[in-house]
Amino acid sequence: MIPYELIRRKRDGGELSAEELRALLDGYAEGRLPDEQMAAFLMAVFFRGLTPRELAVFVQAILESGTVLDLSGIPGPKVDKHSTGGVGDKVSLVLAPLVASLGVVVPMMSGRSLGHTGGTLDKLETIPGFRTDLTIAEMRAQLERIGCVLIGQTDEIAPLDRRLYALRDATATVESIPLIASSIMGKKLAEGAEALVLDVKLGNGAFLPDEARALELARTMVEIGRVRGQQVTAITTAMDRPLGYAVGNALEMEEAILMLQGEAPEDLREVVLTLAAEMLVLGGVAADAARARAEAEAALADGRALQWMAAIIEAQGGNPAVLEDPALLPQAPVRMVLEADASGWIHEVHARRIGEAAVRLGAGRTALGGAIDPAVGFHITAKPGQRVEAGEPLATVHARRGSDAEAGLRALREAIRIDEDEAPEPLPLIGRRITAADVAPAASRGS
Amino acid sequence: MIPYELIRRKRDGGELSAEELRALLDGYAEGRLPDEQMAAFLMAVFFRGLTPRELAVFVQAILESGTVLDLSGIPGPKVDKHSTGGVGDKVSLVLAPLVASLGVVVPMMSGRSLGHTGGTLDKLETIPGFRTDLTIAEMRAQLERIGCVLIGQTDEIAPLDRRLYALRDATATVESIPLIASSIMGKKLAEGAEALVLDVKLGNGAFLPDEARALELARTMVEIGRVRGQQVTAITTAMDRPLGYAVGNALEMEEAILMLQGEAPEDLREVVLTLAAEMLVLGGVAADAARARAEAEAALADGRALQWMAAIIEAQGGNPAVLEDPALLPQAPVRMVLEADASGWIHEVHARRIGEAAVRLGAGRTALGGAIDPAVGFHITAKPGQRVEAGEPLATVHARRGSDAEAGLRALREAIRIDEDEAPEPLPLIGRRITAADVAPAASRGS
Repeated sequence: MIPYELIRRKRDGGELSAEELRALLDGYAEGRLPDEQMAAFLMAVFFRGLTPRELAVFVQAILESGTVLDLSGIPGPKVDKHSTGGVGDKVSLVLAPLVASLGVVVPMMSGRSLGHTGGTLDKLETIPGFRTDLTIAEMRAQLERIGCVLIGQTDEIAPLDRRLYALRDATATVESIPLIASSIMGKKLAEGAEALVLDVKLGNGAFLPDEARALELARTMVEIGRVRGQQVTAITTAMDRPLGYAVGNALEMEEAILMLQGEAPEDLREVVLTLAAEMLVLGGVAADAARARAEAEAALADGRALQWMAAIIEAQGGNPAVLEDPALLPQAPVRMVLEADASGWIHEVHARRIGEAAVRLGAGRTALGGAIDPAVGFHITAKPGQRVEAGEPLATVHARRGSDAEAGLRALREAIRIDEDEAPEPLPLIGRRITAADVAPAASRGS
Repeated sequence: MIPYELIRRKRDGGELSAEELRALLDGYAEGRLPDEQMAAFLMAVFFRGLTPRELAVFVQAILESGTVLDLSGIPGPKVDKHSTGGVGDKVSLVLAPLVASLGVVVPMMSGRSLGHTGGTLDKLETIPGFRTDLTIAEMRAQLERIGCVLIGQTDEIAPLDRRLYALRDATATVESIPLIASSIMGKKLAEGAEALVLDVKLGNGAFLPDEARALELARTMVEIGRVRGQQVTAITTAMDRPLGYAVGNALEMEEAILMLQGEAPEDLREVVLTLAAEMLVLGGVAADAARARAEAEAALADGRALQWMAAIIEAQGGNPAVLEDPALLPQAPVRMVLEADASGWIHEVHARRIGEAAVRLGAGRTALGGAIDPAVGFHITAKPGQRVEAGEPLATVHARRGSDAEAGLRALREAIRIDEDEAPEPLPLIGRRITAADVAPAASRGS
């Protein structure tokens, strides 16, 4: 392998053979290819994309760079969910126990918050004692016993992905669709799921705010599954406003607990049920989406999902009493309420601005490894399309200090727009459903 | 400075401010910016180009990364020449003493061969004893005394250029016009020349074989001079066939000596006189190109140029007897003659193939720092457009071993095409002349 020639070929729009691309990626994984050559290659990929064949090789190289979990010894279908990340996205906290309670094994490995989007691990860790760093042996044992784990990625899984991500994060090559798609899919497929549901967020609070690019990402990931013969369904959901009311780690955990107890914001409930139905059908435990949804509704209503969450919390060292008394979660000392300053229609609850304001409150981090404040955040009941009267409460800021709360109120005022014009039309909550049948075997090119 | 943001802006087609770009380049020069970030930035520049303002900052950063020679204390105009490199290009070996003999100070720093193109330093070092590694103090003293040095770049000049070049050479970002242009100009302007003549080669043997790109490089370099208020003229010359007859270090040195003695292939003589006239006019020692050319012809005819070469060789430790007896140069033990295998017209003497075959003989190097054989090479009298008869000698291979000579003959047979059709039209030897008046102050974009 002559790295220069391979970088140049990609730079000039050519295709690398499977052997060539694999040599480049394995060389990097093993420390033989220096960072600067991989950085130049990734920037060339940003501009030129990857062909479907290259994409498959890229995924396989990430997948095989570490331990590939074989969960075939564990009874039951293994189905996972991945979200491209959003503001107030606590879906996994409800979805995983709900689906597991209906017989689907959910080996869910999640990430931490970074930038304006939250991370499931940070939310889980607001439960006193909850451990997200299970060993692979512990994970297997828990999957056999309860059918669900809610953990962080272990170092053994897809180490090449972590190296590539750190390099991309230093070299402005994060926002490349084939690189994002192969990172997600290589990692997820190494975690042992047989089928995968992707929640691809659209709108200003999404990782890719441009809708066409978000859809391209969805199609690319579904295409990766199609080529590998693994069932992957992508569903696009609205992220122009936060999902549910809570934004912030303990606040979101509390909202998830309330939903498991039967009480949830309508949008959160709708997204959870839609994704649950998809997972149940992919797992083969329900014949169609309507029946799957009915089963999921029943498992929420009769407390089975809550019971599964209690078992998961207990198994992972957490205090299951939080399910009875969410006040055991971290509480912020300062609360301030935002009231509508005029009557009218809520035209916008700008997800990205709220996510960024939550980071400033301390709920998120701007760099890997940074500390977060689990208690702070927002509780925003205002939703686009609602009619509100002047003085009506729209949201509450939960802060560590009064000055932070004031800043949070100012940010909310900028993010929530009330207008006297007629009700706006926000993005449909549930957008498109993309399956293998929808992706033509065409090139996944461009950045 | 947040490198990620600057790389991203360039990646997305934006412009960096002077402060931002300077911070990036100085950070790299000083070892604060890691290779992988500069590699990603250079690849983004490959795709997005540099604006005229960025280009000027890039040149200035290279220029100021090391010692900037101030030759203003040395009497006389200082004019240098740079060639983009070719096969058989021994122009500097004649041009520098010729122009110096007419009162222009020529502080010429040259490079070594790399790839299919030759390097002036390697040719000079075939003279027994000749030193190309003068100190800056020695260089100044010789310029004051003789008005000419023929030396290598010192480590003090433009160290950033060497670091960037090594990185580009590893990351497939060599072939970027703004990067090539800023490298050449930053280095040349640090060497103290007030004005510069650029010999931009066109054709298959050129560094940039694509004519449009070679012209873009010429315009970009002239534009850099224009913005800085320094006179820079580019002249395009043919490099679809070798220049002169000799290809190989000692063979080219010998051809240069013969020219200084009055005997030269017509094409070599024409290029030398054209560039000499340009340098003499830029240096203000001749009123116009016609008078300048007449003076140069006279200095060649009456031995002044030869006398200057003798002084330079003596000053730099070489044996000036080579000027009387070129057989003192290294001689290859094996010579084989190529004869025309058919009668017809010479349609092609493919410069790049001949340059590559010369490297295989040992005359050049494929990696920086490799060894060369000074004696080997080709002497090719065949020129495109010539009528030849079957059996007529076309070229001689000078080789170390018989097997090398055989391989050289085979390569010549592939490079020299004879056809019964009518005479071809090779590229005009002297192409365009591009001066500041020809370059509009427009963006220099694209790779």
